[in-house]
Amino acid sequence: MSSVPDAAVLGASGYAGALSAQLLWRHPSFELVAVTSRSDAGRRLDDLHPRYRVPLVLEELDLERHGQVDAAIVAYPHGAASETVKHLREQGVRVVDLSADFRLRDLEVYERHYGGHAAPELLDDAVYGLTELHRAEVAGADIVANPGCFPTAALLALAPLARAGLIADVVVDAKTGVSGAGRQATEITHFVSADENVNAYGLPVHRHVAEMDQELAALGAPVAATFVPHLVPLDQGELVSCYVTPARETSAEEVRALFEDAYADEPFVELAERPPGVREVRDTNLCRLSTHADPRTGKVMAFAAIDNLWKGTASQAVQNLNLMFGRPEGEGIA
Amino acid sequence: MSSVPDAAVLGASGYAGALSAQLLWRHPSFELVAVTSRSDAGRRLDDLHPRYRVPLVLEELDLERHGQVDAAIVAYPHGAASETVKHLREQGVRVVDLSADFRLRDLEVYERHYGGHAAPELLDDAVYGLTELHRAEVAGADIVANPGCFPTAALLALAPLARAGLIADVVVDAKTGVSGAGRQATEITHFVSADENVNAYGLPVHRHVAEMDQELAALGAPVAATFVPHLVPLDQGELVSCYVTPARETSAEEVRALFEDAYADEPFVELAERPPGVREVRDTNLCRLSTHADPRTGKVMAFAAIDNLWKGTASQAVQNLNLMFGRPEGEGIA
Amino acid sequence: MSSVPDAAVLGASGYAGALSAQLLWRHPSFELVAVTSRSDAGRRLDDLHPRYRVPLVLEELDLERHGQVDAAIVAYPHGAASETVKHLREQGVRVVDLSADFRLRDLEVYERHYGGHAAPELLDDAVYGLTELHRAEVAGADIVANPGCFPTAALLALAPLARAGLIADVVVDAKTGVSGAGRQATEITHFVSADENVNAYGLPVHRHVAEMDQELAALGAPVAATFVPHLVPLDQGELVSCYVTPARETSAEEVRALFEDAYADEPFVELAERPPGVREVRDTNLCRLSTHADPRTGKVMAFAAIDNLWKGTASQAVQNLNLMFGRPEGEGIA
Amino acid sequence: MSSVPDAAVLGASGYAGALSAQLLWRHPSFELVAVTSRSDAGRRLDDLHPRYRVPLVLEELDLERHGQVDAAIVAYPHGAASETVKHLREQGVRVVDLSADFRLRDLEVYERHYGGHAAPELLDDAVYGLTELHRAEVAGADIVANPGCFPTAALLALAPLARAGLIADVVVDAKTGVSGAGRQATEITHFVSADENVNAYGLPVHRHVAEMDQELAALGAPVAATFVPHLVPLDQGELVSCYVTPARETSAEEVRALFEDAYADEPFVELAERPPGVREVRDTNLCRLSTHADPRTGKVMAFAAIDNLWKGTASQAVQNLNLMFGRPEGEGIA
Repeated sequence: MSSVPDAAVLGASGYAGALSAQLLWRHPSFELVAVTSRSDAGRRLDDLHPRYRVPLVLEELDLERHGQVDAAIVAYPHGAASETVKHLREQGVRVVDLSADFRLRDLEVYERHYGGHAAPELLDDAVYGLTELHRAEVAGADIVANPGCFPTAALLALAPLARAGLIADVVVDAKTGVSGAGRQATEITHFVSADENVNAYGLPVHRHVAEMDQELAALGAPVAATFVPHLVPLDQGELVSCYVTPARETSAEEVRALFEDAYADEPFVELAERPPGVREVRDTNLCRLSTHADPRTGKVMAFAAIDNLWKGTASQAVQNLNLMFGRPEGEGIA
Repeated sequence: MSSVPDAAVLGASGYAGALSAQLLWRHPSFELVAVTSRSDAGRRLDDLHPRYRVPLVLEELDLERHGQVDAAIVAYPHGAASETVKHLREQGVRVVDLSADFRLRDLEVYERHYGGHAAPELLDDAVYGLTELHRAEVAGADIVANPGCFPTAALLALAPLARAGLIADVVVDAKTGVSGAGRQATEITHFVSADENVNAYGLPVHRHVAEMDQELAALGAPVAATFVPHLVPLDQGELVSCYVTPARETSAEEVRALFEDAYADEPFVELAERPPGVREVRDTNLCRLSTHADPRTGKVMAFAAIDNLWKGTASQAVQNLNLMFGRPEGEGIA
Repeated sequence: MSSVPDAAVLGASGYAGALSAQLLWRHPSFELVAVTSRSDAGRRLDDLHPRYRVPLVLEELDLERHGQVDAAIVAYPHGAASETVKHLREQGVRVVDLSADFRLRDLEVYERHYGGHAAPELLDDAVYGLTELHRAEVAGADIVANPGCFPTAALLALAPLARAGLIADVVVDAKTGVSGAGRQATEITHFVSADENVNAYGLPVHRHVAEMDQELAALGAPVAATFVPHLVPLDQGELVSCYVTPARETSAEEVRALFEDAYADEPFVELAERPPGVREVRDTNLCRLSTHADPRTGKVMAFAAIDNLWKGTASQAVQNLNLMFGRPEGEGIA
Repeated sequence: MSSVPDAAVLGASGYAGALSAQLLWRHPSFELVAVTSRSDAGRRLDDLHPRYRVPLVLEELDLERHGQVDAAIVAYPHGAASETVKHLREQGVRVVDLSADFRLRDLEVYERHYGGHAAPELLDDAVYGLTELHRAEVAGADIVANPGCFPTAALLALAPLARAGLIADVVVDAKTGVSGAGRQATEITHFVSADENVNAYGLPVHRHVAEMDQELAALGAPVAATFVPHLVPLDQGELVSCYVTPARETSAEEVRALFEDAYADEPFVELAERPPGVREVRDTNLCRLSTHADPRTGKVMAFAAIDNLWKGTASQAVQNLNLMFGRPEGEGIA
């Protein structure tokens, strides 16, 4: 019998689920006992994703059996997760859900963007799992709604400004690698479509903006953010460029000090002098940030680089699991 | 003796100069008689740039001899062009200058960004060669200051809004391929640095913004634009994402109508329903545009895709030369 | 009524068909009157492939109507072309077929690799359309079997050696961009699968080898070639590396002379001093070749770079059509 | 005082040296006490290579001081290492040398490829550090000559065949990412040169072939290999395709059995059913192999994928250091 909590990853055939499985497989304080997939049941995970060296066979979900684990990461599409999470909770499983299903406090906002919800009664139990902003609540939570990759980077780039009351308006222009579009083979994810290309998508309003607005308001900046993601020809990595119209005059120095205060003790947030490149954080749980002020326009700018599959999804999920189970926050991901 | 104007490209070893030479080499109404290069004199251009099939040997500049041509494209670095252009003009050569040296009306603004100027007396003769905005002046000009690649895309994306008095504030977030950083081998242009990477550069104020501000003001929008370029891992192509805070309430329909009016007869500007990808305009003189309005925030967005080496530089230079010499605007570039 | 031959492209939604349509659309001596597609009927070609600016709507195939054209390029999958070609021939259409269906003289060999054939009686009418090797027969043919992209490059690299009786054994190691895998979105063509990757495929015996063997034998080298293609992370371009064990001692100089003799007058074959890069021939009908001899091992090596979509497929098809209709060979593709 | 051996990386500003430093920095059984660089002395390593999170300042080499360490990885250019290694040995430092300086047994062969040698008297002390082939000697060595990245992959792909006397002739066609060309910014490593490109280099005879021949002979296959590397547009990763003319008839099954016998217990060599992709081994010390036989030609083929910076260089260096210092072979690299 294992002396560490048993864990499962449901929906492990996609990029986020597969990396979650890889991280838990090597994790010293969780035992990965099952990985599931509807589309690829029967295949070995390391056959489907040779980079992720998890020698487990993907199984069909069996709620009774898979409900025996202590911890689950659910990597289902938006809308499809809530029902399964509900079942898992009924069996006492503590869950990190990678979908949007438990991120939004306001059911009406959720339904406008994503359609119906199978377990609205659990929304109050869920904690928004941007670890650096909600560390204490995450530790005690039974459901953690892992943030979207764009909100993760954008909120880390904006939180110090929001708390200081500095955000009157904000434009968030994001660039993401193609893994952000998921593992499904489509016209968009075809190499020949994405290669030598850049374009915007999700216009005019990408649904991730609801998370940003919710959290910015909670931080003290009740604004409607303008958010546009762009697809760029790389596999994993994400840069978020934030252009803030400040509520009052400020300076590069004041801004820098706000960020230093906010993140001095954060193990996974780094302040850089130069604008961070996404290569610098590849395959890590890090968020690298730089801040700038344009004296001509008064605008404040913040740039955040993360790996969309790591801090943007899977390693942040493990960071949250670590907190939920009393483990050191960086265990298995640093 | 040739019955068409003789042309030279000075500084033909860089990407922009080499493509200019290629376009003129195949042009039915110009005869490319010389290509020059300080660094690569003695090499054949098609040895240095096998893609550009110009079988001429790069020569050292010889002002007396090269001043005999009718037309010259000068592809020198900023600051290094003005003196040579002055000499060429003294010999009656009509010039398209690819540098910033003749773009800015205000000498003081120029000197703040670029240092001293060798021929300020010629600034009044120069026409800012964003063809679609200054077609008539270009036709009669002896010096055309070819715009920067970023201003080209940004101004095409913003001109209809500026003319309508709609721009109260604007953020321009640009993404460019690595050819935009020039042919010099540096830490930044190394494949291993640029691959799987995205980052911002030129912070906090990129000097191209002076051109944008100058032209936006001339169009009726006296704003200080916020402009940040980003390097993305592709060779050529540029996407400019513009986020406009409108001076008054507007709608997607009104915006669309403004663009349709502005560009209905433009052979090289296309309006797209979906956000344009840079692949769609690769190796063309086209600018593809889409416009959007965010009902939540009131923001107006415009996205412009160009090929930074073509419409962003070399093919626009030829488009201008065509006008200067009474040729059909699209000859040799369509 | 048009004074030039009417042409159609059947199967114009894939990369090869779409580029064929683009080349014919701009061709001065053909009038592209129809493009067809089963999967994308009803969409405009320039909506499906914005790079290829053909403003025609893709139609369902209507043999009666489409059989009225003078010339057709058939871009169907292997096995699916022969029946349609048969119908087209019955209506007098002259055809360039991009599939393998008419490439192999020996029906038994065809059926071993590709299955049944719907029009074996037409095999004798078909000419193998590697233009440089079969120019005269192509000119008089009613059916041209356009070669595979790998055989095109390999045979151009090997023909002078084969004719000289120099090939005792040959290994052909090919590298192709992802467009070579077709437009279908699959696990293999997903950006995240192909990016930062290289691997071999088609092991142990890729069916293109049958074409190589057939043509090598016809040239005087009755060998069984070893051929392995590899997928590399670029969109279009193909390099074929040929390692020949010579039948007798030879030298770099003798080899070079053989190639110079063979290709001195070929407009689309270039001999390079250095190993050619695929960038150098991108978007052209060119094949660039270099030859080398290893004094240690006696091996002769030849490297051929082509654009798999151009000389490897679509522009060679037009090169053949030009010959068939008495046009200058390079019209519309140079 | 540290209870584990002190280590230094000399020449830590290049890719191989920097990754060596990173691996030792995190290694539980070595203490990285110094990193040196001539060109970048004074910069922090994690400023130069943000991905490698080593917070040490690069120093000028000081033989007296740096000679105090127990272990050194020397990452100097070919020809420049031997003198420094000599000094280190005089001070008792145990060395893994990443250059070619101690790889070749035969001084004459070395000098033909690389020029003069500063310490020929040490050649007999050096062990060729392809770990899987020379594990026992490595454990007792004071100088380990870390193999070239191409020989590493090629020899792992060929050793079982060589030992079985199966190699009558062999062609090795290799494909490497651009990091294999080093960190120096050149025309070749410029993003715009390498992107969308593939080409061969090092023709007609690449000097790595001397290592292959030496080791193949030692394994029982005294052949002159044909070896050609190609540059492909990815950052790190290497695929080696080996085409063997067998000395006698064999079969896919016999070949497979030879490889299974050879590598059953090797922790870092994996046999795959399908041809391995370099993505599968990215950032690992693994070599993935597949073998095939072509019944038509009798050829045997083996494909080996490694990460050129890991198993091809830095992680194999650490694998060797582990053995030299009695540590578990995979410590710090698995």
